[in-house]
Amino acid sequence: MTSIKMITEAASRLAGQARVTPLLTSPFLDEIAGRHLMVKAECLQHTGSFKFRGAWSALSGMSAEQRRNGVLAYSSGNHGQGIAFAAQKHNVPAVVVMPSDAPDTKISKTKKLGAEVVLYDRETEDRDAIGARISGERGMPLIKPFDDPFVIAGQGTVGLEIATQAGLGDDDDAVDVLVCCGGGGLTSGVALALADRVPKARVRPCEPVGFDDVTRSLISGKIESNLLKSGSICDAIISNSPGDITFPILKKTCAPGLVVTEEECLRAMALAFSHLKIIVEPGGAASLAAALFHGGQISGKSVIAIATGGNVDAPLFTRAISAFGSGL
Amino acid sequence: MTSIKMITEAASRLAGQARVTPLLTSPFLDEIAGRHLMVKAECLQHTGSFKFRGAWSALSGMSAEQRRNGVLAYSSGNHGQGIAFAAQKHNVPAVVVMPSDAPDTKISKTKKLGAEVVLYDRETEDRDAIGARISGERGMPLIKPFDDPFVIAGQGTVGLEIATQAGLGDDDDAVDVLVCCGGGGLTSGVALALADRVPKARVRPCEPVGFDDVTRSLISGKIESNLLKSGSICDAIISNSPGDITFPILKKTCAPGLVVTEEECLRAMALAFSHLKIIVEPGGAASLAAALFHGGQISGKSVIAIATGGNVDAPLFTRAISAFGSGL
Repeated sequence: MTSIKMITEAASRLAGQARVTPLLTSPFLDEIAGRHLMVKAECLQHTGSFKFRGAWSALSGMSAEQRRNGVLAYSSGNHGQGIAFAAQKHNVPAVVVMPSDAPDTKISKTKKLGAEVVLYDRETEDRDAIGARISGERGMPLIKPFDDPFVIAGQGTVGLEIATQAGLGDDDDAVDVLVCCGGGGLTSGVALALADRVPKARVRPCEPVGFDDVTRSLISGKIESNLLKSGSICDAIISNSPGDITFPILKKTCAPGLVVTEEECLRAMALAFSHLKIIVEPGGAASLAAALFHGGQISGKSVIAIATGGNVDAPLFTRAISAFGSGL
Repeated sequence: MTSIKMITEAASRLAGQARVTPLLTSPFLDEIAGRHLMVKAECLQHTGSFKFRGAWSALSGMSAEQRRNGVLAYSSGNHGQGIAFAAQKHNVPAVVVMPSDAPDTKISKTKKLGAEVVLYDRETEDRDAIGARISGERGMPLIKPFDDPFVIAGQGTVGLEIATQAGLGDDDDAVDVLVCCGGGGLTSGVALALADRVPKARVRPCEPVGFDDVTRSLISGKIESNLLKSGSICDAIISNSPGDITFPILKKTCAPGLVVTEEECLRAMALAFSHLKIIVEPGGAASLAAALFHGGQISGKSVIAIATGGNVDAPLFTRAISAFGSGL
């Protein structure tokens, strides 16, 4: 299991490679949230999401021999780009297995970051079988998007930075930390980091309605799944269920989840446009939406929302700011 | 005249008040620019532009007695917001004189930051006369947007940060630093800071076609004015001419200006959306546009563009990303 030692070691390997993203604030957002709100802008991370941290942590945690033939990842989005860029910077090849119906821009961005993209047909082909074959044939280890101790350790570096940047300490019980949650890699990493640095802080997974598997799993105490498999604008965080590795960590370290609507995510994106000047994708805005519109479920005097990614196409971003971006 | 000592003193007063904004990069933008491109994201500064620095520098540089009745500013928008927020944080009132054609978002935000807003017509009224009258009546010192040594010193702190963040030193002659330029407050401050820290760097004012008064003034050696007084989407940087204080500094310290089209600014905004995940307003994107599309006029092995502000309304931002945001 990922330990605080693994997280601080990942932080050392990430130093000078990942960006220390800023913690942004706005008096306008404080007013809406009804408390002091800080936004950790991971959309400003390399490749536009926190995923670069886990990817770098995993690659740099391997020996040169282990990564000699390159690495393999499955992803239709942010994890794939993180892996592609981290592999490129390590001068090793990367293969990213993507569904053939993934948006062209995501496929071409992943390619432009140096990865070989292998497309498969969601209906007729088995992604795991394709991955296993390539991994075996080429001797390329698979880096999973969340259920990997080194990936979790990399994502946990966000928690270390938050504690430092917000000046949080051992006795601080006044803060809730809100994390957009898919499979739970970032949430479990941040929760482990904060359990060490700010043990009284409450870490809260945030999910969209209909894809609240983690929130329900925390309530029932066992791994729950979503009925829907796709069909959300929050595509970055609609993993089917928490992972075998992430869930025990989440169960041990997290406070109750928060569930937001798609419209609330779009509103949060528009408010981030107006007041923070950052691009946040719908799935990266769930935490901000929870902070802004679900304050009644938050007890902290202040709240930190991790804006996890900014990889959104122009039409969807336009939809958010056209509908909600004109007011204050 | 503003000295390097005044700039470092301003940096001390700004510490913990202004944000140290990140220097962002993208391999995609490097490819377009044809060299290594770093973007100083001053759109992430408090109030959405670098202007907060100069405002804080001016207010904090006054005695409590001097600022007792509050302060006055005239501004097309960003300077006004900077003054309003800096005054609010100093617990003194602010009056901001703004052109009636300034973007709605800038006018209403300035009000929400606690300032009293007085509107005037750019074509028919004289903002200096209006400012002088209010200043006299209310005993409020005027803080000019650029022609003020303390304001220039505050803006110069951007230059100090750039030198540190980019690891530039005394002997570095491989970099051009591109600055969106209105009246020249930021450009002269940055140029003074870099003349001390990176004397071989070239500081380049960037302006939109039709509002290239600084570029022409640098060529002719005397203060030139624009024929047009308004009508650019680059509203933040269409000052009529360089200032009496800024021009001698610009003349002494700057390399030739760069002139960009409005369409290039919109393209640069769309590329910043896609690859940096920041909101840049048209006038804040002139430097990035020059870096991306006028590389033939740049000699540095690397280039730094200061993205000076992000205060743009949703319809104009939508126009940029709808037209140019779908490609890579």
